[in-house]
Amino acid sequence: MPKPRNILFIMFDQLRQDYLSCYGHPHLHTPNIDRLASRGVRFTRAYIQSPICGSSRMSTYTGRYVHSHGASWNGIPLKVGEMTLGDHLRKLGMGAWLVGKTHMRADAEGMERLGLEPDSLIGARVAECGFDVFERDDGMLPEGPDGSYDPDGARRYNDYLREAGYDSDNPWHDFANSALDAEGNVLSGWFLKNAVHPANIDERDSETPYLTRRGMEFIEQAQAPWLCHLSYIKPHWPYIVPAPYHEMYGPNHVPPPVRSQAEYDTAHPVLRAFMDTKIGRSFSKPEVRNAVIPAYMGLIKQCDDQMGALFDWLERTGRMQDTMIVLTSDHGDFLGDHWMGEKTFFHDTSTRVPLIIYDPSEEADATRGMVCDALVESIDLAPTFVEVAGGDVPGHILEGESLLPILHGQATDTRRDFVICEYDYSGSPIAKLLNTSVRDAVMFMVADRDWKLIHCEGGHRPILFDLRNDPQELVDLGDSADHAGIIAAMYDKLFAWARRPAQRTTRSEAQLIEMRGKSGRRGIVLGVYDENDTDLELTIRYRGRKARDWRSVKGG
Amino acid sequence: MPKPRNILFIMFDQLRQDYLSCYGHPHLHTPNIDRLASRGVRFTRAYIQSPICGSSRMSTYTGRYVHSHGASWNGIPLKVGEMTLGDHLRKLGMGAWLVGKTHMRADAEGMERLGLEPDSLIGARVAECGFDVFERDDGMLPEGPDGSYDPDGARRYNDYLREAGYDSDNPWHDFANSALDAEGNVLSGWFLKNAVHPANIDERDSETPYLTRRGMEFIEQAQAPWLCHLSYIKPHWPYIVPAPYHEMYGPNHVPPPVRSQAEYDTAHPVLRAFMDTKIGRSFSKPEVRNAVIPAYMGLIKQCDDQMGALFDWLERTGRMQDTMIVLTSDHGDFLGDHWMGEKTFFHDTSTRVPLIIYDPSEEADATRGMVCDALVESIDLAPTFVEVAGGDVPGHILEGESLLPILHGQATDTRRDFVICEYDYSGSPIAKLLNTSVRDAVMFMVADRDWKLIHCEGGHRPILFDLRNDPQELVDLGDSADHAGIIAAMYDKLFAWARRPAQRTTRSEAQLIEMRGKSGRRGIVLGVYDENDTDLELTIRYRGRKARDWRSVKGG
Repeated sequence: MPKPRNILFIMFDQLRQDYLSCYGHPHLHTPNIDRLASRGVRFTRAYIQSPICGSSRMSTYTGRYVHSHGASWNGIPLKVGEMTLGDHLRKLGMGAWLVGKTHMRADAEGMERLGLEPDSLIGARVAECGFDVFERDDGMLPEGPDGSYDPDGARRYNDYLREAGYDSDNPWHDFANSALDAEGNVLSGWFLKNAVHPANIDERDSETPYLTRRGMEFIEQAQAPWLCHLSYIKPHWPYIVPAPYHEMYGPNHVPPPVRSQAEYDTAHPVLRAFMDTKIGRSFSKPEVRNAVIPAYMGLIKQCDDQMGALFDWLERTGRMQDTMIVLTSDHGDFLGDHWMGEKTFFHDTSTRVPLIIYDPSEEADATRGMVCDALVESIDLAPTFVEVAGGDVPGHILEGESLLPILHGQATDTRRDFVICEYDYSGSPIAKLLNTSVRDAVMFMVADRDWKLIHCEGGHRPILFDLRNDPQELVDLGDSADHAGIIAAMYDKLFAWARRPAQRTTRSEAQLIEMRGKSGRRGIVLGVYDENDTDLELTIRYRGRKARDWRSVKGG
Repeated sequence: MPKPRNILFIMFDQLRQDYLSCYGHPHLHTPNIDRLASRGVRFTRAYIQSPICGSSRMSTYTGRYVHSHGASWNGIPLKVGEMTLGDHLRKLGMGAWLVGKTHMRADAEGMERLGLEPDSLIGARVAECGFDVFERDDGMLPEGPDGSYDPDGARRYNDYLREAGYDSDNPWHDFANSALDAEGNVLSGWFLKNAVHPANIDERDSETPYLTRRGMEFIEQAQAPWLCHLSYIKPHWPYIVPAPYHEMYGPNHVPPPVRSQAEYDTAHPVLRAFMDTKIGRSFSKPEVRNAVIPAYMGLIKQCDDQMGALFDWLERTGRMQDTMIVLTSDHGDFLGDHWMGEKTFFHDTSTRVPLIIYDPSEEADATRGMVCDALVESIDLAPTFVEVAGGDVPGHILEGESLLPILHGQATDTRRDFVICEYDYSGSPIAKLLNTSVRDAVMFMVADRDWKLIHCEGGHRPILFDLRNDPQELVDLGDSADHAGIIAAMYDKLFAWARRPAQRTTRSEAQLIEMRGKSGRRGIVLGVYDENDTDLELTIRYRGRKARDWRSVKGG
């Protein structure tokens, strides 16, 4: 079996780790994804770098922490100059193609400053986070009183729907993400109550099958070697799914929320603000969970079925032999756990994601079906891909580490002893509620296998969870005097991380080591008193030279 | 008196603060610089961001800490995408011109990646750290067995000398930076012993007067408003000066070194490695100091005389009325103090530099002649210049603060309560000596008015100086149990600094505040159960819509 030539990098959006049967869901059977896990390595401690789509993805696509690339919230552009997966892979002869979502916001100002035209090859790649675009589909055409959050986010998919006969100015909303009542009224998927209805769309035309087909179309015409980022919008909200998936699960499949009254009553003020948002209050209600979670499960079931179709097709076409398949998510979804909805906090519910890597190469035969609890971060994918493409990992730019040693059975863990996750809520309504300054509306999570510490800027005490004895993260020990030593040790890790030289990206470690002493050999002579006190070789160019007296120069 | 239209930003290289008479030198009289101080504000606690030319300057020119821009040693390119003074000022209609040295190394790889041609307008600016170049003169054409450290560093000056009749393949070395013996042998200025001789050059042709004239030539033809970075090479080594400056000072003017035997004997291992370099050992010898320091003083005296000529000319031509003048240095020089030469450590000798700002505007009349002990950093200049150019300081990019409130008597201090300086020695021979990894060969200094803490990566204890009771920094309290609280408090400051969101440069604070709640008004509806439980306005676009049943769509 040859080394993988190509990489199929599948990302789901807002897919919780524990909502796959291979990760232990009791009701939701995902045999196709499970099958991939049985042929690859399934990571149980894969953490994302930020619990929000855009920032998590920018970390994955740059291989760098949010603190390093700065795109710390949805809509904050990734600044021009940041290197991406595409930059690294194309240098190695591998294309980097997008089919689906990135949540990339281009740095239009920076591009203009550097004269990069958005329609030039380089400009387009900069604007698309380093990918060449087969299809960009951010899966959103919301409409509000001030216009749309992302008018182009579902443009091609909307065109597809209209061509297929779904007649509307916004078929993404009216068909794919809404149900219909008997009178022909659109029941918007934005209203959680409507999650129980089937989306008013032929299942084959809904977003997940559409993107699967687009992925196959890409692969059929692609020139190897390629990385294809097949990036699904689902199971991200709006929570609504077409038949038959809308009725596969019901309230009886909804697990009780992971939460406690004490957790709410004693919550750290910042965490409490997240609980007390409209979202938190809503997802704490049984009627919301009972409506939404079955739809969420249906969306995942549909994803799994699509994975079945995709993997079968890859198998039939021989591509399973030479294609590495990575399947992951950009973050989870609280779904009412810990009195929250959405994803924007640091419990494992949101920050630990599924990660399955299938490597077709012989070297990986020893690890097929392995479950690995290594401390992994999503920034590890970029270096993994660079190695698959045959390159050396540029450790001065990419901050993660390649997972190939684990995939090939040469290692059982990464070299790190902690993971980092960050959340910047300075642009979110919660900062307004809490009246938090932009500088202070920032949080960091540092976790190892035993402990998770969350630091909120603004003079707050930390939050601490004992992951070993309280894996559900229900008891915050952040003000426990007994844990002062643990807290200090976790802060030390965060401090060491914060000091890392993340911006020294223009010289590699090897180049820096090579620089040592180089200036001396290029004529910089320091601390040398006279011609006799040092190495002849270094100063030979300054000896035996002759010159005229300057007073004779000006005359002629 | 009108507001300043133009900015003359004068930088000397390796000029110690205490080697000017206005800062208290007992023998070296610098009446012209002192006169500028008497007409402006003289800052006594102006710290540079890194004790080495390139990194210090990259911070000054970007207005950002080394940890933010990443060009952490000479020869490490400033990465493409980093914004510079020129980017900020040109947006405001002010040109940013270079006459002299920057020590900029272009990010050739990054430029190629983004398709920036070095000879295009944008490419040239990126390559020249944002300046338009009137004259780039890095003041160096050293020659070693592996070639030259900077073959182009003195190209134009060398051309000038050759045209003036200084016949040599390297007149920069053979005339400007060397003496001559009676037999016509060049006595290289690289050998410290030769510092006592006069450089073999007409004083008027030496580097400092040459650059002064080039500065005047720039100003005469410049279109206002402009910033002119008149950036002198001197009094940086090679330590040699033409007549009559070579004999103005002698060993009797050389102060005893600031050092103690205990300081050496008990030195922190990293500091000790710096002391034990060839440079440290050499500058600890009286014969070196007695040869070098008088030449260094002569170089400074020449600088001051040139300032006299320049300021007189500005006065005569009426430009003193509308030109802000800033005079500073990129770092100091140990000159044997603390058993070290050069500048690459954190004692005030190196990190506290002269800074004098003359503002011709009426608003500054109240502060003329003022001496200000505010905690200032060199990154404060960029925001000051932005304000002079009429702009608002983009605080999400520029990390310093404008000094205009101090210059205008509206404030007596900056808002910061500590300053930061950084040194990355991973590419220096000392890392080889200490066998330090690239990751660990990094140091941070954090200082306020009372304390200075130096943190060396690699598991070392910190270094601590009591600036109030030990202003000469002779006693390292880094392992004093009595100072554990101080050490922890200084570390807290460093930690808070390290966590700052320095890379979130694509959105301003105002934009982030404006974002709060914006996505809701653009159609993102979260946590809303049904049409009745929320603000009508936000969800109105999702109501009353009609659609066909999907089963009727496909047919027609």
